[in-house]
Amino acid sequence: MRKYSHDTIARVRLRHRPGQFAHLASVIADNGGLVGEISTFSIGENDTVRDITLETDGEAHTARVLDAIRALPDVELLATTDRVFEAHRGGKISTTSRGRIETLSDLRYIYTPGVARVALALQRDPDLAWDFTGIATSVGIFTNGSRVLGLGNIGPLASLPVMEGKAALYDRFAGISATPILLNTLDPAEFIETVVRASVGFGGVHLEDIRMPDCFRIEEEVAARLAKPVMHDDQWGTATVALAAILNACKLIGVDFRASRVGQIGLGAAGSAIARTALDYGAREVLVSDLSADACARMAGFGASVTDMATVMRESDIVVATTGRPGLIRPEMVRRGQVIFALSNPDAEIDPDVAVAAGAAYAGDGRSINNALAFPGIFRGALDVRAREITPAMRLAAAEAIAAHADPGELVPNPLDLRVHAAVRKAVSDTARAQGLANTAKLA
Amino acid sequence: MRKYSHDTIARVRLRHRPGQFAHLASVIADNGGLVGEISTFSIGENDTVRDITLETDGEAHTARVLDAIRALPDVELLATTDRVFEAHRGGKISTTSRGRIETLSDLRYIYTPGVARVALALQRDPDLAWDFTGIATSVGIFTNGSRVLGLGNIGPLASLPVMEGKAALYDRFAGISATPILLNTLDPAEFIETVVRASVGFGGVHLEDIRMPDCFRIEEEVAARLAKPVMHDDQWGTATVALAAILNACKLIGVDFRASRVGQIGLGAAGSAIARTALDYGAREVLVSDLSADACARMAGFGASVTDMATVMRESDIVVATTGRPGLIRPEMVRRGQVIFALSNPDAEIDPDVAVAAGAAYAGDGRSINNALAFPGIFRGALDVRAREITPAMRLAAAEAIAAHADPGELVPNPLDLRVHAAVRKAVSDTARAQGLANTAKLA
Repeated sequence: MRKYSHDTIARVRLRHRPGQFAHLASVIADNGGLVGEISTFSIGENDTVRDITLETDGEAHTARVLDAIRALPDVELLATTDRVFEAHRGGKISTTSRGRIETLSDLRYIYTPGVARVALALQRDPDLAWDFTGIATSVGIFTNGSRVLGLGNIGPLASLPVMEGKAALYDRFAGISATPILLNTLDPAEFIETVVRASVGFGGVHLEDIRMPDCFRIEEEVAARLAKPVMHDDQWGTATVALAAILNACKLIGVDFRASRVGQIGLGAAGSAIARTALDYGAREVLVSDLSADACARMAGFGASVTDMATVMRESDIVVATTGRPGLIRPEMVRRGQVIFALSNPDAEIDPDVAVAAGAAYAGDGRSINNALAFPGIFRGALDVRAREITPAMRLAAAEAIAAHADPGELVPNPLDLRVHAAVRKAVSDTARAQGLANTAKLA
Repeated sequence: MRKYSHDTIARVRLRHRPGQFAHLASVIADNGGLVGEISTFSIGENDTVRDITLETDGEAHTARVLDAIRALPDVELLATTDRVFEAHRGGKISTTSRGRIETLSDLRYIYTPGVARVALALQRDPDLAWDFTGIATSVGIFTNGSRVLGLGNIGPLASLPVMEGKAALYDRFAGISATPILLNTLDPAEFIETVVRASVGFGGVHLEDIRMPDCFRIEEEVAARLAKPVMHDDQWGTATVALAAILNACKLIGVDFRASRVGQIGLGAAGSAIARTALDYGAREVLVSDLSADACARMAGFGASVTDMATVMRESDIVVATTGRPGLIRPEMVRRGQVIFALSNPDAEIDPDVAVAAGAAYAGDGRSINNALAFPGIFRGALDVRAREITPAMRLAAAEAIAAHADPGELVPNPLDLRVHAAVRKAVSDTARAQGLANTAKLA
């Protein structure tokens, strides 16, 4: 998978003669640029105007390629467009009316006076909200933008493009109406109060991009105070997909996860959730290490064995690293036959090729751990049965469903394959039913 | 305009013979029911199945009509469906992805890794949120459900159908993505804090269905603390449409509003806003009366003349009543030539026919005061120019735009006529520009 992520559309005018385009393409190649989509904007008497998507590894690189294009005698660079920014222009989601509003009767049904009867019915029986409002397929995405992707505390507003992206995926993958709710507070108690107060209208609460260690307390208290599914995606979405990938890696090389010692290096949001998920899934032992004594003590409380990184590397059959420190794992630390997932982005704790050369039986990095595989189906499955929580068993079932849908030889499925999300949804709702957590009395 | 609001679809099987349907229709009529839409579901050898919409004035009335249908020898009542509840099933809005998510490239643009570049750009320049998120066309609808329609304090969840209705109208009439945010608190300070904290991602804040007097303090403080349009619709949406209707009534009978004494009886959310709007629009004098000394003192502070109801009726050229007390205005109180708007729903302070018989030059009730004519265009106009507030002048311009679009002889236009909303939008943004409130430096 390529690391290039900077796509620019260059609109160029070329002479309409053989060899012109080939020459342009070779100049782009000579400067290390990739050519993506090419479309013809117009064809004139003597020239053509084309939109060429250039893929580079960053702004400086793009500038270099564009300079080289500008230097060509028979090519005119007319305009450039950043494909990523274009995809975000005007926002990525919208709230739209589901029904017809064409006649005064329609208005009288959905608005006054008709709506008063529905509101009164809900006052008498709040459960009717699951039938006559959108709550059964709605999720609020709450964040304060205090730990966004690899960017750190960029604040709530700057995190909106990320939250809109999540909401777009909820719609596309699970038919869920998700709404970003950006909270202007860094105080965990205020965050908790605000979510508890403002989540009445949402069937589920998705917590996102909240810094450590606030995220732990916030998720715990919000889940305890609300009788609805609550999940911090940076913990459990990531851990669910990581487990799926690890299970498939184990299968590829014939390792039994439950008979293995699993080592977790780095106990941030993702790392601590991966360690807890390994415990929940029944690993023989889970060894953990982190520079923070608090983080270690917390994991000891969940049943992990706290140690140092050298011991984790020496004793573990399966190692997962989520430290954000490129190159932390040196080749000589790798034990022959180990499974290693070095998940830090964009640069891993150890390059998979290096790890395998050093004796690892399997090595992966963070590029396959896309939590878009997990959160849409998990919430939809929980909402389907009106579960009042998301349990470890529901997440483990989701991980198995994800693992089962990977193509042979792959760690995880393509998130654009809707069958995965349907399978996760079903696995989660089936598990909730089996656990007696389906709110069946309320379901038709 | 009819008052009937209880529409039921009756699915009936009838003999396929002349006179069968006519007989059924006459039985419905004999029981006081109206027949709405009729559609044929199936036609068999000897009978037809039809869906007939029955309009009645309530559940008991519907039951009576259905019993009469059941008693017919050759008619079989197969099923009944409540049209209002059907229109609300599953919710009236959904949050959907605006762009294409078909390829891994699409995913890389809208989600990781592409989205990180957009988030970083917003961190450096928050104004870019207006271009690369949906904030420029978004409104949060905040309520605690403490004063919903005529229903009182039904709580936040039961108010969701109303809020979804507002959101559906925002989409339909103004292309605004509106999100209901239900707040589980009756404490005004908590309400204010929550809105201030949770509104970062919304371009505007619509306050709805909040009880008196909390609504005044909440709107005032939220507007003072946020640099974005804030409006309590029960006050200003209603007052804007009421002014439009009054202006058209004045035009019909040749009264000059600004030369008039306007009397406001009842100083709740709507009444106090109507009185303030009359002051803002330049009425010669505004007389007000209310049983609450606090409400009267508040209006005195805005420049109204506080008096008693008898004086209001005696001295005013134009009277507006919003007391919720049917029949409060007795015919002998009406002054010859007065304009009277008795707005309480469903039963007015004085029936318009009675008022006219008693000498009023014009009388109207609340059925024409549909604030769906105002709020979508007001917010869209304010957002268009990034105004940081909604001023009285902007609302007065909206009222004039609404009045101007009524058909000759009508008080207000049909809210389904999208030209009204476009005109309100333009009037509001033009006024903001004229007031120097357009945030032009930030606009392309």
